[in-house]
This record gives sequence, structure tokens and C-alpha cells, in this order.
Amino acid sequence: MEIISHEKPLGLFARMWLYLKSLPEKLKAKVVEVVNKVIKLGKDDPRRITHSIKVGLALTMVSIFYYYQPLYDNFGVSAMWAVMTVVVVFEFSVGATLGKGLNRGLATLVAGGLGVGAHHLASLSGEIGEPILLGFFVFIQAAASTFIRFFPTIKARYDYGLLIFILTFSLISVSGFRDDEILELAHKRLSTVIIGGSACIIISILICPVWAGQDLHNLIATNLEKLGKFLEGFGNEYFKTLEDGESSNKDEKSFMQEYKSALNSKSSEESLANFARWEPGHGRFQFRHPWQRYLKIGNLTRQCAYRIDALNGYLNTEIQAAPEIKSKIQEACTEMSLESGRALKELALAIKKTSQQPITSADTHIKNAKSAAKNLNTLLKSGIWEDCDLLTVVPVATVASLLIDVVNCTEKVAESAYELASAANFESIDSAISTEKPRSGQCGAEKSNADCPHVVITVSELTPAAAMADRSLKA
Amino acid sequence: MEIISHEKPLGLFARMWLYLKSLPEKLKAKVVEVVNKVIKLGKDDPRRITHSIKVGLALTMVSIFYYYQPLYDNFGVSAMWAVMTVVVVFEFSVGATLGKGLNRGLATLVAGGLGVGAHHLASLSGEIGEPILLGFFVFIQAAASTFIRFFPTIKARYDYGLLIFILTFSLISVSGFRDDEILELAHKRLSTVIIGGSACIIISILICPVWAGQDLHNLIATNLEKLGKFLEGFGNEYFKTLEDGESSNKDEKSFMQEYKSALNSKSSEESLANFARWEPGHGRFQFRHPWQRYLKIGNLTRQCAYRIDALNGYLNTEIQAAPEIKSKIQEACTEMSLESGRALKELALAIKKTSQQPITSADTHIKNAKSAAKNLNTLLKSGIWEDCDLLTVVPVATVASLLIDVVNCTEKVAESAYELASAANFESIDSAISTEKPRSGQCGAEKSNADCPHVVITVSELTPAAAMADRSLKA
Repeated sequence: MEIISHEKPLGLFARMWLYLKSLPEKLKAKVVEVVNKVIKLGKDDPRRITHSIKVGLALTMVSIFYYYQPLYDNFGVSAMWAVMTVVVVFEFSVGATLGKGLNRGLATLVAGGLGVGAHHLASLSGEIGEPILLGFFVFIQAAASTFIRFFPTIKARYDYGLLIFILTFSLISVSGFRDDEILELAHKRLSTVIIGGSACIIISILICPVWAGQDLHNLIATNLEKLGKFLEGFGNEYFKTLEDGESSNKDEKSFMQEYKSALNSKSSEESLANFARWEPGHGRFQFRHPWQRYLKIGNLTRQCAYRIDALNGYLNTEIQAAPEIKSKIQEACTEMSLESGRALKELALAIKKTSQQPITSADTHIKNAKSAAKNLNTLLKSGIWEDCDLLTVVPVATVASLLIDVVNCTEKVAESAYELASAANFESIDSAISTEKPRSGQCGAEKSNADCPHVVITVSELTPAAAMADRSLKA
Repeated sequence: MEIISHEKPLGLFARMWLYLKSLPEKLKAKVVEVVNKVIKLGKDDPRRITHSIKVGLALTMVSIFYYYQPLYDNFGVSAMWAVMTVVVVFEFSVGATLGKGLNRGLATLVAGGLGVGAHHLASLSGEIGEPILLGFFVFIQAAASTFIRFFPTIKARYDYGLLIFILTFSLISVSGFRDDEILELAHKRLSTVIIGGSACIIISILICPVWAGQDLHNLIATNLEKLGKFLEGFGNEYFKTLEDGESSNKDEKSFMQEYKSALNSKSSEESLANFARWEPGHGRFQFRHPWQRYLKIGNLTRQCAYRIDALNGYLNTEIQAAPEIKSKIQEACTEMSLESGRALKELALAIKKTSQQPITSADTHIKNAKSAAKNLNTLLKSGIWEDCDLLTVVPVATVASLLIDVVNCTEKVAESAYELASAANFESIDSAISTEKPRSGQCGAEKSNADCPHVVITVSELTPAAAMADRSLKA
């Protein structure tokens, strides 16, 4: 009995002791995990750290209003609008900050003016009429502005401005002060908003600026490069598994999966383009840089990425087509994939360097890819297939067909990259190419194969997906 | 001379007159255009109009604080926080409003408490130390909170809360009042925020509520239905152009293009799911409805839509494969397309009605589609192709191959729809099916073809894209 009664509290104590002893270790493990996550987040994009410091700096600067007596005497409690403006307006990129700041400033100005007017109008209508009329004004403008926010074009650029419009109008028109006090309120609100907004804009431009335009530029180029990497590797990978069985190294293949990020980048491209339009000229970009053309290239890149996703399906499967069939088209397919991959990488380089030179070499690669497609066509027409089982031909035929689609897409990307290069005045090393001849006269273009006697067929004879992709973009 | 000098002012006058005369018409045309746009926006989703009215109502209600003297005496200028809260928190759906309201309320509570503490701590350190310490606190918390906002999981759900945390902490800790005044400021801010937030939440739930969960539910079902419509029409459309030439009517074909909206719905699905998690039980949905499973179905739907986009490319082209080849596989392909289309439509119906019954009929359709795929396989194996030029076979082979991919995708969608139905307790009319046998024992499942003697081949023998799609979802 004694032993048992003695053991029980010991058991409880021991368990508690064990728990308490393990607690620091568990906590330590948790802390280490969180710290690792933080380090990774910072390493992935060190600009996140500078951004956080910039926000802290702007906020501390603006809060001087509260400490510094002469300024505080001037603005009083309204100084908090400056703090609020900094917290709400300071965004990651210069474009977003500028867009929000200008929206907030303009909306405050207009809504403040209208609010003062509405308040004055209502105050004329007597003590009973005033709250009714004011309520009516607030209701009408809130409902109307909220509805206007549903327009997609307005939502993309002026959503925040309309929000601040509703806010300021309601605050100013409704507040129960006398007319002269209201004017002062509106004036104080506007000046503190301007002070807070300017602080954000100045800090975001002067200290390690993050340009949305530069990000969009890089994103488009990187996506093209990722597709190019996949295509460069695809030919070898697809035909290697045939020779070496399942020997493919997973680490080696990771770069083949990078293209996936291009599949869903539409929304980030669009918001970056919206931000970029607010930005002043910076680096190689003018104020009215043709950001819309980047979106066009991005859309075509995605069309290409859809086909590559389908190709990837044929790469990762254990079921392979018959080796003798694969080997017959190996050379042509590898060539097509390699050359269009190289072309995409050259186009990415052209965008990265804002130089026209790589577009010309991309044209050469596209020409090579098309001539490989022609060879493939000849192969398919020749009778070498007659002894094959069609069932085993289908996967290979699909791969070939998808590759031809990819070549077509690449050509479209090259065309829109060329349009971008002309519109944005990319540096042209060989100026003769860009001025003497329009692109439609080059071999890369669709309609003028007659200029290039060695590329007789139009690739779209076989597959129409690229043409369709173009059509869907225009729709 | 007289005539000329007389004519000149008349000419100017006449031009001005013409301009002025045309002005009302131009204005009228512009107004009519805008009005038409407004009507279209309202007709597309009438809930936009009710939402606008609800915002106006909530704002007018809250502004009573300013008119009603006893309330105004109590809260004073702080009443404007209630107005601000309404403007900022009131979102289109109940979930978004609840999420923002709770974020704002909680963040105000926590940051208010911490801010009062920081202010008290700083005030202990003397007149010179106070602003330095306060500035340090503000800097540290702003930088840390801004960095935390970059974590993707936190950004998705608590971004707004962190923003308000920075805001409230800075406002409370920095303001130059005495300790007791600061407590009152924090208290007033919290209560007005709660009043404004409650007004939003009550109005958004009581008056024509817009449930994000219901929207997500409908979006997923509608996307499936659109793909189903395309597939039901595809077989006829693809083989009709062969028989009737280019006689296809554009109006008839418009429903074939509806699937495109499914290609880019990922971001809206994700934000709806995030909002839906905040919503209380409503209609057929419990509080912890498995919203994540909708996202899984959505992802599989998109994988299917990518293949359909490729199929659409073969539909819209002027270059057609040789008729004799097409006619050979017409029956099998039409059957596959029709049956998988029907299956998708049944699955959409199952989700719409939250009933398990249609999933069972979808299984039958998938079984039919797979048996058509088997027939196609047999056809391809038989020697009927030997006299054909392989070049003309490639487009048809690709279409067949893509259709097999689609059948595989459809099966995956059916599986995840079944998982959803079990997790969300969809109404089961024939309860025996759902309780007696797990799905893996049914003919629709992958591994148990032995149960269904008439479907001997696994469709994935031919194409691997569906399997790969699944893998990419898990990654």
C-alpha cells in the first residue's frame, strides 16, 4: 500500500517533470522552425526586409508630429491622419504606393470639397431638415460609389480612391461642427494626408526602391526562360528514358518543373502592370513604357506553357511508346524542342537586356525549329511506319504534334517580343535589321515563307492550336 | 469685300452653332452608353445593387451617432471610427465582411492593450527617454508586423488584422495624452469599432446575404457544367465540319467557348474559400463545411480545361484531317466525348443539388466513356490504317489522345466529388451505395477493373497526363 501510494504522486510528478523537461526542447524546436521560416522568407527576396525597415522608418518619422510641440500645436489630433496614411498607403512597390497615395490624396480633396458643400446645403434647411438631408446625401453617395466600384476598369485602378471618397465625404458632411470648423477639419485632414502620403512616396522612391515595372519585366523574362529550359531538356529527357530506363536523376530534373509557375502568373502580371503605370521613369524604363505589351507576351507564354504541361505528362509516365518508333523521330523532335527552347531563352535575354540583338538569333533558332518540323513532316509522309502498330504510334504522334504547337507559339512570342522591342525602343546593335526591313519580310514571319526557300511548309499545316491561341487573346 | 467680311463671322458662328447643336446629342449618346453599362452591370448580378444599398444603409445608420445628442456626448469625435469601420469593413460577401470585422476588432483589442502598455512604459523613462523609447517601439512593431505580412498563410487570412494592429498600436502608443486619457481613447476606439463592425455584420447577414461559400459552391459546379457542355458538343462539332464543311453557325457555337472562364478561375476560387471559412452555417452548409475539397475539384477541373483548350484548337482550324480517317474513329471519339461530358454535367448536378444520386449516374457515364476508349484502342490496333498516310493521321490521333486524357481527368473529378459528398454528407437517395461499399470497389475507380469485366484496359495505358495532373496537385 505504502509503495503504491508513494509511487502515484511520484508517477504524476515524474510525468510533469518529463513534460517540463521536454518543454524547453519543444519550444526550442518551434522557435528554430519559425526562425528558419523567417530566414527563408528573407533570403527568397531580401527586399522584404528593407521594405519592413522602410515602413518602420516612415512611421517613426511621421510620429514626430506628436512629439514635436510646434507641429502638434498646428495639427492637433488630426496628426493621426498622417500616421494612418502611412500605415495604409505604404505598399511593397513604388507603383502601388504612388497609386494608393495619389488615389487617397485626390479622393480626400474632391470628397472634402463636396462634403463641405453638402454640409453647408443641409445646414440651410433648418434643424429638422438637416439630419434628414445629410442622411440622404450620405446614403446616395455611398450607394452610388459602392456600385461604381464594381466596374472592372475602375476597380483595377481607382478602387482605393472610391473607398476614401466614401469615407471622407461621410466624415466631413456628417460631423456636427459649425461651417468654419468643418473647413478647418477638411483642410487639416487634407494636409495631414498629403504629409503622410509624401513621406511614403519619398521613402519608397529614395531608399532601395522596388519598381513594379522592373518586377513585371523580370517576371515575363524569367517565365520565358523557364519554358526555354524545359524545352532544351525535354528532347534528351524523353528519349533518354527510352535508352537508360528509369535512371533519370530527380535532382537533375527539378529545373524541368520550373515552368509550372508560369501557368498561374496571370493575376500577378496584371496587378504589376497596373502598378507600373503609376511609376515615373526609372532605369531603362520611360514613364509611358508599353506595359500592356508585356501582358500580351505573358498571355502567349501561358498558351505555350499549357502545351508544355501536356508534354510533361508524356515525360513522367512509366508507359512508353515503342522504342523503334521513338528512335525514328528522335532527331527531328529533339531538334524542334532544343531549337524552340533556345529561341525562348534568347527572347528572355532580349527582354532582360532590352536589346534587339538576341531577337535576331531567336529568329535563327525558330527557322531551325521549323525546318526540323519540315523534316518530321517528310518522315511522317514516308512509308517507314507501315509495319507499326498504330496504338504504339499515338503517344509519339501526340508528342510530335504538341512540339509543333510549341514551335508555333514560340513564333508568336517572338513576334510580340519584336513589337515590344520596337515600341520600347530596345537597343539595336545591328540597326539595319530593325529599320530597313519590317518583320513580315523575315523568315520568322508566317506569311512569307517564299523568302526562305529552305522552309517550304507552314508549320500550322499540321496543328492549329497556336493560331487559336492568338484568336482567344483577341477575344 | 463686304460679302467676305460678312461671311467670316457667320462661318465661325455657324461652326460654333453646329458644335453647340451637336453637343447635346453627343452628351446624350455618352449618357446612354454609361446608363447601358450600368444596367448591364446590375443585370449581370443584381446582388451588386442590393449590396450598394446595404452599404448606404449601414453608413446612414452609423452616422446617427453624430446626430443623436446623447450618443454623441458619449463618444464625441471617436464616433468617426464607427463610420470608418463601416466604410472599410463592409465587403460584398458575408464571409469577407466577417473576416475583416473580426480581424479589425481583435487587432484593435490586442494592439490597444499593447499600445497602452508601451505608452506607460515609455512615460516612466523621463522626458528625454520617452520619445526615443516610443519611437523605438513603433519602429520595431511596424517593421516586424510588416515582415510577418509576407508569410503567405498569414497574408491569406490575417493581412488586414496586421494592418490594423500596426495602425492602432502606433496611434495609441504615440498620442501625447496622459495615461488615463489614453485608456479612454483606447476604450472609445474599441467600442466604436465594435459598433461599426457589428452594424456591418448584422446588415450583411440579415438583408439579402451574399454567402461566399454558396458562390464557391456554384462556381465549381458551373465550371464543371461548362466543360460538360463543351464535351457534349465537341464530337458532333468536330465530325460535322467534316460532313457539312464550314457551315457551323457562330451563335450555336458560343456555348462551346464558355469553358474558357474555367481556365483562370483559380484566384477567385481561393479567395472565396478563404472568405467561406469565416462564415457561420447557412442553408445547406455547416460551419465547418469542407471548403478545401472544392479547391481540389477546382484544380482538377482546370487540368481538364487545359486539355479541352487544346481540343478546341483542333475544332477551330480550317485544316482538317483526311475524312476517311476521321470517319473510322468517329463513333468511338463521339461516344467518349459525349459520355465524359454527360458525366461532368451529372457531377455538376450532384454538387448543385448536394445529392449523391447523380454521382452514381456519372459513374455509369464514365464506364461508358472508358469502354469507348477500349473500342478505340481495338480500332487502333487493327490493321485498318495501313494504307493511310501517317501525316493525315497525326491530328486525329492527337484528338483521340486528348479525349482519353479528358476521360481520365473526368474520373479524377468524380473521385474528388465523391470525397466531397462523403465529407459534406450529401443527401444519399440510395443509401446502400454510399454505406455498403467504399468507392474503390466500384467500376469508376482506377485499380479495380477486375470488378467490371467489360472494361478491361486501364485508360492510362495510352496517356499519362491525368495521372501527372494529380501528381502536380499533390506537389
